[in-house]
Amino acid sequence: MEPRLEIIAQLASETPSKIVLLVFDGLGDVPLAELGGMTPLEAARKPNLKTLAAASSLGLIDPVFPGVTPGSGPGHLGLFGYEPTAYEIGRGLIEGLGIGFAFSGDDVASRFNFATMDEAGTITDRRAGRIGSEEAAGLCARLQEAIPEIDGARVFVRAVKEHRGVAVFRKAGLGGSLPDTDPQKTGVPQLEPVGLDDRSKATAAVVRTFLRRANEVLRDRRTANTVLMRGFSTYLPLPSFLDLYKLRACAIATYPMYRGLASLAGMEVVAAGETLEDEVRALEKAWDSHTFFFIHVKKTDSYGEDGNARGKTSVIEETDRILLPAILEKRPAVLCVTGDHSTPCALKAHSWHPVPLMIHSVSAIPSAEADADFGERHCARGSLGRLRAKYLMPLLLSHAGKLVKFGA
Amino acid sequence: MEPRLEIIAQLASETPSKIVLLVFDGLGDVPLAELGGMTPLEAARKPNLKTLAAASSLGLIDPVFPGVTPGSGPGHLGLFGYEPTAYEIGRGLIEGLGIGFAFSGDDVASRFNFATMDEAGTITDRRAGRIGSEEAAGLCARLQEAIPEIDGARVFVRAVKEHRGVAVFRKAGLGGSLPDTDPQKTGVPQLEPVGLDDRSKATAAVVRTFLRRANEVLRDRRTANTVLMRGFSTYLPLPSFLDLYKLRACAIATYPMYRGLASLAGMEVVAAGETLEDEVRALEKAWDSHTFFFIHVKKTDSYGEDGNARGKTSVIEETDRILLPAILEKRPAVLCVTGDHSTPCALKAHSWHPVPLMIHSVSAIPSAEADADFGERHCARGSLGRLRAKYLMPLLLSHAGKLVKFGA
Repeated sequence: MEPRLEIIAQLASETPSKIVLLVFDGLGDVPLAELGGMTPLEAARKPNLKTLAAASSLGLIDPVFPGVTPGSGPGHLGLFGYEPTAYEIGRGLIEGLGIGFAFSGDDVASRFNFATMDEAGTITDRRAGRIGSEEAAGLCARLQEAIPEIDGARVFVRAVKEHRGVAVFRKAGLGGSLPDTDPQKTGVPQLEPVGLDDRSKATAAVVRTFLRRANEVLRDRRTANTVLMRGFSTYLPLPSFLDLYKLRACAIATYPMYRGLASLAGMEVVAAGETLEDEVRALEKAWDSHTFFFIHVKKTDSYGEDGNARGKTSVIEETDRILLPAILEKRPAVLCVTGDHSTPCALKAHSWHPVPLMIHSVSAIPSAEADADFGERHCARGSLGRLRAKYLMPLLLSHAGKLVKFGA
Repeated sequence: MEPRLEIIAQLASETPSKIVLLVFDGLGDVPLAELGGMTPLEAARKPNLKTLAAASSLGLIDPVFPGVTPGSGPGHLGLFGYEPTAYEIGRGLIEGLGIGFAFSGDDVASRFNFATMDEAGTITDRRAGRIGSEEAAGLCARLQEAIPEIDGARVFVRAVKEHRGVAVFRKAGLGGSLPDTDPQKTGVPQLEPVGLDDRSKATAAVVRTFLRRANEVLRDRRTANTVLMRGFSTYLPLPSFLDLYKLRACAIATYPMYRGLASLAGMEVVAAGETLEDEVRALEKAWDSHTFFFIHVKKTDSYGEDGNARGKTSVIEETDRILLPAILEKRPAVLCVTGDHSTPCALKAHSWHPVPLMIHSVSAIPSAEADADFGERHCARGSLGRLRAKYLMPLLLSHAGKLVKFGA
């Protein structure tokens, strides 16, 4: 374990006080002309967050380190207190966790897309026309039935959503160091599975057979007649929130990937429905039995990726209206609002910009400015300064009175 | 390689976008009564930098870590993205690189001063009356001719400027851990060469012979009749800008030491003349063939060391007038303006104060203040916060669209 986490684990004690970590995915942004030189967060009408900001410590966090654009995995690892460069969490694993797959230590997981190839084996559509979830689920069932096992490796094929699925290969000694077989473009054949070390060469042999047999199973089809594999990864449980922080942690997230990431950290992932209202109900149901609540709001990121500044602003406004009152009514000892990374509308992609951070508790140090608000530039002047995300969890624990003194 | 740099090297990709890093040596300062309570940077009339500041991210950088006053070597290592405490770069090496000496891996380099000693061997002038460059070059040639080799070590003696020279000892197995023989004061004899480990003891034996023979060669002279050795160092090439960052880097600097530091990082060091106008011409010539430009302005530091606040201000004003328009005309994707350390006029020396930083690009987060400017206190309130200098290069690469996402 990282020495920093060992220290935290020694200092943490279980207390009844409650911490809420509200994460707007891709929250951070840059000033936009269409918003009068403001960012979506600055421009949003958010009376609850604004009132809160005037009584909270503000700052900025770097998910990985300054200048690095994080994927969702490293972004959340940092928020959860882990050094993101110390753990490589492949997409296959995250996606599998997100659909509730029960992994064992012998598993290698990968995502796959149903794709379309022509008779020569050339990929003509990497997403098979984004076939519907129902059709894909039927194809997954056919693959599962036809390919239960390969050379002693159990095979699990699960549908995710639309054209996406997860394949898990379970056999002791399989490695997860394989590049994607998805060529990332059309007009070329699928890439051969290649193992980058001895254990992964064994996996590559299994995957080669899997692809050959999958193509046979899907041979009768004109579209969605092959699968492209991505994000091979072994199962790597993280030190859990209970062991590390003595927190009974609950994850309220609607999207599979974030549910998967939370489960990797040992959080109980509860049913959270699809809407903000569903998340409120999940919070109310889980409140008494947990001491930590990770609540994830996805659509700030989606609108950022679309370059839709007004959409991003409106998600923040809706959350302020629907989720914030429900959280505040519960009177958590600590309420932290932040993001896992920035997704500026101007870039239509994740970025390296540090993420606004607000920590509300009785021991916060609010801004002395009369117009304090929750926004990128207010946070840049905040009392917390600029921090690595991995220091957020110890800060939240301390604000909740859960960390004892280090040293005599 | 440092793990941080390994990550950056994996994420960096070569693109045509261009980055300019303009470094004012010793830029940072403290408020001065003679400037009405402003710093030289705050007081300077710098319309181009001021306009730029209103459209740039501002912040502060610590070259090494907070509280540490860096030499020029660590100051530039940090700017170039290396952890300055991970590499010890002696002055001998830097000075040799600055005059274009072609080092090999078996070299130990040191600087020396021509000095004057009396008949008893007592040093009476540590700089031999600052003898002229021409006279010193003649003495170096005499030493080189008389001492081509010592116990299997090839000896290279090169003039630098005025009373300064470089001696290089080339033999496998020589170490570079030797204190200076320069006693740093007059009225005492030169210090004996001492090796601090086995390899360096071998070097000390060579240096003892070198000093004895040099004194013989210079015996006929009343002044400049000995040499004082300083800054012993082995040759240690850094991971190059091309390997690390995929940048075709060009250094435009007029002073040997900074040219040497840039060459150590694998930059192409181009002819840069002596004036700001010469640097403009060098930039124009190198523009098409490079993607990164390190431009060094020396005299802010020199005036800082002299305690000349108006001189320091005027260098900033001249650079604003002469260099800035030329750089802006080229429309780099990213223009960063900063310093390698602070040299406050009040201290007449390098200092530990963090250094103003400005990053201009389309994805900058400018201040919301109406009077934004490039100065110590504006930068302290800037959107970048306070960073270790080693994170600057990843930030510049990201702003230029040269770093892909880390993790899934």
